[in-house]
Amino acid sequence: MNTPPLYRQLANHYLDAIRSGTLKAGERFPSIRLMMEKHAVSLSTAVQVCRQLENYGVLEARPRSGNFIRRPDTAPAATPIAPPLDSGVYVGIHELVSSVIKASQRANIKVNFASAYCAPELYPLKILQDHMLKALRHDPHLLGAPGSACGNSALRNILARRALTAKTNLTAERIVITNGATEAINLALRAVTQPGDTVAVESPTFYGLLQILESLGLRVLEVPTTAHAGINLFALEQLLRGSVRIQALIVIPNLQNPLGSIMPDANKARLVQLCADHETVLIEDDTYGDLVDSDQPLSTLKHWDVRDNVIYCASLNKTLAPGIRLGWISAGKWHERVEMLKHTQSRGCEALSQLAVSALMKTPSYERYLRRLRKTLTQQRQQMSAAIIRYFPQGTRVTSPQGGTLLWIELPGQHSSMVFFHEALKAGIQISPGDIFSNDKRFNHFVRIGCGAPYSAKIDEALATLGRLLKNQS
Amino acid sequence: MNTPPLYRQLANHYLDAIRSGTLKAGERFPSIRLMMEKHAVSLSTAVQVCRQLENYGVLEARPRSGNFIRRPDTAPAATPIAPPLDSGVYVGIHELVSSVIKASQRANIKVNFASAYCAPELYPLKILQDHMLKALRHDPHLLGAPGSACGNSALRNILARRALTAKTNLTAERIVITNGATEAINLALRAVTQPGDTVAVESPTFYGLLQILESLGLRVLEVPTTAHAGINLFALEQLLRGSVRIQALIVIPNLQNPLGSIMPDANKARLVQLCADHETVLIEDDTYGDLVDSDQPLSTLKHWDVRDNVIYCASLNKTLAPGIRLGWISAGKWHERVEMLKHTQSRGCEALSQLAVSALMKTPSYERYLRRLRKTLTQQRQQMSAAIIRYFPQGTRVTSPQGGTLLWIELPGQHSSMVFFHEALKAGIQISPGDIFSNDKRFNHFVRIGCGAPYSAKIDEALATLGRLLKNQS
Repeated sequence: MNTPPLYRQLANHYLDAIRSGTLKAGERFPSIRLMMEKHAVSLSTAVQVCRQLENYGVLEARPRSGNFIRRPDTAPAATPIAPPLDSGVYVGIHELVSSVIKASQRANIKVNFASAYCAPELYPLKILQDHMLKALRHDPHLLGAPGSACGNSALRNILARRALTAKTNLTAERIVITNGATEAINLALRAVTQPGDTVAVESPTFYGLLQILESLGLRVLEVPTTAHAGINLFALEQLLRGSVRIQALIVIPNLQNPLGSIMPDANKARLVQLCADHETVLIEDDTYGDLVDSDQPLSTLKHWDVRDNVIYCASLNKTLAPGIRLGWISAGKWHERVEMLKHTQSRGCEALSQLAVSALMKTPSYERYLRRLRKTLTQQRQQMSAAIIRYFPQGTRVTSPQGGTLLWIELPGQHSSMVFFHEALKAGIQISPGDIFSNDKRFNHFVRIGCGAPYSAKIDEALATLGRLLKNQS
Repeated sequence: MNTPPLYRQLANHYLDAIRSGTLKAGERFPSIRLMMEKHAVSLSTAVQVCRQLENYGVLEARPRSGNFIRRPDTAPAATPIAPPLDSGVYVGIHELVSSVIKASQRANIKVNFASAYCAPELYPLKILQDHMLKALRHDPHLLGAPGSACGNSALRNILARRALTAKTNLTAERIVITNGATEAINLALRAVTQPGDTVAVESPTFYGLLQILESLGLRVLEVPTTAHAGINLFALEQLLRGSVRIQALIVIPNLQNPLGSIMPDANKARLVQLCADHETVLIEDDTYGDLVDSDQPLSTLKHWDVRDNVIYCASLNKTLAPGIRLGWISAGKWHERVEMLKHTQSRGCEALSQLAVSALMKTPSYERYLRRLRKTLTQQRQQMSAAIIRYFPQGTRVTSPQGGTLLWIELPGQHSSMVFFHEALKAGIQISPGDIFSNDKRFNHFVRIGCGAPYSAKIDEALATLGRLLKNQS
């Protein structure tokens, strides 16, 4: 890797000073003017240093007072966050998640805010189905042979080529097509851990990841993560230096589920470096990145991975079609092991979906579709967010993610998300209670709300109902 | 369970006598006439007793001399079989299998005898593809929602109803649709074992099972198995009574791969009982059963399972279409755990294949298709078998399975199956060397030949070439 730019060198310099205690929480940070003088840097560089430290969560700008050193960030509001658990514990989340799912299945759901998917009408289902029809008509022996071990090579080529635009170098021959990101993450964990090992995750994080860890008999450490900048690198570093050996870390760097955070590039670079330094395998889940507001692709952790320590996983079922179970994994030096595990776990995926998806993704209409989808989602999130602020009790805090379908909402006062969840179900409304996004109770006053569906009177009414339920609770 | 019929009681009685050493190998067995007198039974009962003991592999009829006690059987020929390994060992088969696969991929294959599939033209691909087209046209939102967790309920109903005709009671609600039998076996093993546990398998057995066991970090005990009657119950019982705790046993009771053996019903019943007595979970792989010559369905191990100790796994990709990755598992008291593991391993399977398969399987044309396929396979096996006997060196022994696509061939003299495999590859012919069907070298003079393709001049020529290679070797 090249020398880091000047602003990043300076930021690291101050970061060291904060780490070592030379600069303490609550202290005033050197002013922009002072930095310019002391380090002979431009205004823009000095500003970038401060922004960088803000991203790290160690600097706080107070209006009209200047910058102050702060404790690692909390998310999304200023509630004190529980410290990371001091030793790896076995996850015990599955029972809770499964009781939540079963309760929802029994209920008569009229409005579902628990889904992370977009509404079906937002996906290019017709085009995909047409490509399937074409593939079926074109090759009468399509179902006559098993799918190839690592997946359709045309699809792997397209995925590798698309990754390039996000400055990520995936070799097509070293991509394995999987049954969704779920199987990809499974394979990554099976490749680099043994049952009983400790794996770190963001906190809060997607409950599906916690379930995978539980099913593989892994211990879990939760690392505080903010809607502002993603995983807290300070807390992580502390953990990595601690007595518990952390075998792997799973991070959703772009549009984290449920926070919606996008890690700043500098944090991504630092995270990759930290993990490599501590020989902790970094597993990247990039399932949501393509749903970012901007048409400029986000960088991946894999992009910063000069030491082949990142396993990249992703999926198409959030961006392209929920009914298509296609994910992929690029496992670098663990490729052969992942290929073996995929073969022994489920063999190659069926060919038809892969052919249809390849046919769609190789045309420019795929990018046009994504651009349209992004605009739609931006609008839907804004409308939902405004309604939540309007209907929910005062003191409710809502994230404002730069993409995706999810809002993470902190309820004020003593509201319990599980009580809220069950009351909402009775009213025919499904939400995701914060409790399932962590292995302890630290998010019991949060809920996740999906904004995948176009705003409507029915949705508006449902949000008003939720607001009423909360107001009656307090 | 009801009292077993008289003949089975008597057979068990003699079995005990053989086990305890009262009757020894080589001794003459009581004549039919003597049995009728001593036990006051009919001729037919006395004959059934003898047949039963033959099935157990402990009785041998010598023409014009009567019945004699014999050592547990060997397969398919009278070569001395290696004793079961005396303690569980980790499988180390994957590297070998993978080198065999890679060598085949590099070669320029003109005739492939390594496949267990039928030729594409024998499958109802056109009908299946038509059902897919219909499903796609019928529901424009088919790809708009994820597949349901345990699979399509119509398909699960059809599978449960079909199982009934084989006297097997599977509850539709407790079936989980999987990505082939490979995933089903995986889930079964993950549900009932921990890495380091010992699992018993038939020997020889399908290398794919050995690869799964290796990938899950399990130890393996191989139990002698014969083309005549399947797993040797004597040897198994010895092992179950031994010092190594056997957590599970995987058995292919019907048309075993590679032997083609079909376990007699009495053996199936006894096997299920033995495993339940020793609290060893019995995992049944019933992938090939529908390819039996007879239109009378074979009984499954699950049929004899009164104590809920059998996990039933099967798949459609050998009987219906290689390109359809649909298997299923009925895990009895482990259902909830299997459901959880399926959810965390790969989520629900895609809906389209399930819809098409359901539409096909619910019509009588499915049974008609199977009947036709069985007849075709019988003929293909006969033609292949005759050609092998014609072309291969004298002393070659070939199994005569009652169904399926596989022949297991013992080469005479000092032939090495790995040398043979590589020489055949050079001639553009792919076969499966015996070495990969066991974790040690006990089958290094066997090969498996697939008879899935209609007999042709090209196949005849390939078999003649194989014969020449063998004759040049010796």
